[in-house]
Amino acid sequence: MVPAVIAVDAGGTSTRAAVVGLTGDVLGVGRAGAGNPISSGVELATANVVEACRQALAQSGNSERIVSSLVTMAGGANGSTPTDGLVARLIDSGVPGPLAIDSDVLSAYFSGSPASEGAVLIVGTGAVAGRISDGLLARVADGLGWLLGDAGSGFWIGRRAAIAAAADLDGRGEPTALTDDVLAEYGLSRGRRKRTGRPEVLSPLVHEIYGRRPIELARLAPIVLRHPDDPVASLILEGAANALTNTITSLLGDDDVPLVLAGGLIGPASALHDRMSQRLAGRHCLTATDGLAGAALMALRRVGAEANQAVHARLVAALAARTLPVGPLGASR
Amino acid sequence: MVPAVIAVDAGGTSTRAAVVGLTGDVLGVGRAGAGNPISSGVELATANVVEACRQALAQSGNSERIVSSLVTMAGGANGSTPTDGLVARLIDSGVPGPLAIDSDVLSAYFSGSPASEGAVLIVGTGAVAGRISDGLLARVADGLGWLLGDAGSGFWIGRRAAIAAAADLDGRGEPTALTDDVLAEYGLSRGRRKRTGRPEVLSPLVHEIYGRRPIELARLAPIVLRHPDDPVASLILEGAANALTNTITSLLGDDDVPLVLAGGLIGPASALHDRMSQRLAGRHCLTATDGLAGAALMALRRVGAEANQAVHARLVAALAARTLPVGPLGASR
Repeated sequence: MVPAVIAVDAGGTSTRAAVVGLTGDVLGVGRAGAGNPISSGVELATANVVEACRQALAQSGNSERIVSSLVTMAGGANGSTPTDGLVARLIDSGVPGPLAIDSDVLSAYFSGSPASEGAVLIVGTGAVAGRISDGLLARVADGLGWLLGDAGSGFWIGRRAAIAAAADLDGRGEPTALTDDVLAEYGLSRGRRKRTGRPEVLSPLVHEIYGRRPIELARLAPIVLRHPDDPVASLILEGAANALTNTITSLLGDDDVPLVLAGGLIGPASALHDRMSQRLAGRHCLTATDGLAGAALMALRRVGAEANQAVHARLVAALAARTLPVGPLGASR
Repeated sequence: MVPAVIAVDAGGTSTRAAVVGLTGDVLGVGRAGAGNPISSGVELATANVVEACRQALAQSGNSERIVSSLVTMAGGANGSTPTDGLVARLIDSGVPGPLAIDSDVLSAYFSGSPASEGAVLIVGTGAVAGRISDGLLARVADGLGWLLGDAGSGFWIGRRAAIAAAADLDGRGEPTALTDDVLAEYGLSRGRRKRTGRPEVLSPLVHEIYGRRPIELARLAPIVLRHPDDPVASLILEGAANALTNTITSLLGDDDVPLVLAGGLIGPASALHDRMSQRLAGRHCLTATDGLAGAALMALRRVGAEANQAVHARLVAALAARTLPVGPLGASR
């Protein structure tokens, strides 16, 4: 039987697994629901990781000898897991050992570069940067959440859009094109009626926003990205780019290592990407690909298999070809 | 029987009532627990308003004919109440009618000035400003809560203290004297141990803060006020003063009316007060006194009784003399 590894990218909304031969061939992939034990509970997370692995093994024909499994997730780091007992549960449920949990910051990095020295900046709902040294997560900057940090993140930008719209309606802030789009996001529009001197719509806007979890303000970030020429939106984007640059600079100083940019908000087509590119000129920037490719490279590294640029490119290409949409239980495959 | 009014200042932690003769004599006062129906529920709020009134009437000897009652609270405004059915409940429970509910923004204003034209800025956990015209609350600025507004408030300042401490520990921000005080507030202190390049204490700090309600960050505001010469704290205070000045300016423009400053954070001894005084030079600033004095003046205005400067001064002095600490049921009186 051919020796192989299992790699799992366990996320807050979906979990994906791959069976990968030691030469970097992708032999099978699988997909299931939410796999983070903090946000979804350890029971559901375990079930989804197991299901994704089962699919990947089935697709590969169950013809390999699995020599190691690696699961990457938010909160995992260098052997510590976000919840106690997760490794034992996964092993008990049939995920082949030896099994390790590691950080999704590392898999995001390795999705963009196979180098043992480098850095990654992830900007999605949150914002976090990591310095990779000798293949391990040596240092972390920010990632402190919406209330205390995540400077320049989707939440950070989205909350500022909400504040700008509220201040515009309140007469305290500049008029901005953001206001109508923010109102529309909650099914509201400006009217002519006023209440104690302010547009009456301010009251249902406040009600809608406080009726949701604060983190949901991140949904307003795309509105800011859509209006890069609006003066208020531009100031928000400049602030985000400055904050993210500060996070990277505090972590890297002048170290000349590759910097992987990951997360939806700084993708190549984003207005934030333009601003970051100016500030990061002179650094060697790479674009993250699929976190599962990063997890697979890490799994190969763990067992001492070759994990160079060629293997990395092959993993990325093979997974890109395999990640067609599938039904929730892989029925269409 | 002498005609009199009842005035009630119903707050989030305590409720106070006064029986006041139409010439402005304070005939009796009473005190009970939380009286805001939004934060405490309509049942408890009703019970505490009723209890405070009962005590005030008992202290006055129940010898007056109550011609009108007025309750001021957060969320009340020009006849609208924060919860449906509150007026009916209070009347059913024996609070003498006709009964009206009005805004605590107005009672804060009238605690500092009897003039029918003016403005008030209240800076506590939140921040709100109001323009009073013809004795009514004509316009409001801010007061939009911790997530969307309250610019320059206790929460606004306290959250920035937490962010500054976290960024200091994270190596992203300036070192600041705030950090040790913020840690101490949660029973923590710096150690030498590190975790992925950061002081290990960052992790329990994050845990402590996310384990509480966001609004509780307002408790950190006094730390900033205690360090006015620290560069980071000074920047926060400058930002708060600018935001509060913007709120006032958006509301008042160049209108030359008295401006009442209310709330613990801009009291005369506060570092924020100094900064506000510079920015408001040229405006006629007054200091708020006891919200119950404002509510009493409003109750007198409602029935057409004299409510001039002399009556205002007498109400303030009489209530200051009466507000010695008492037991929860007024047992010591």
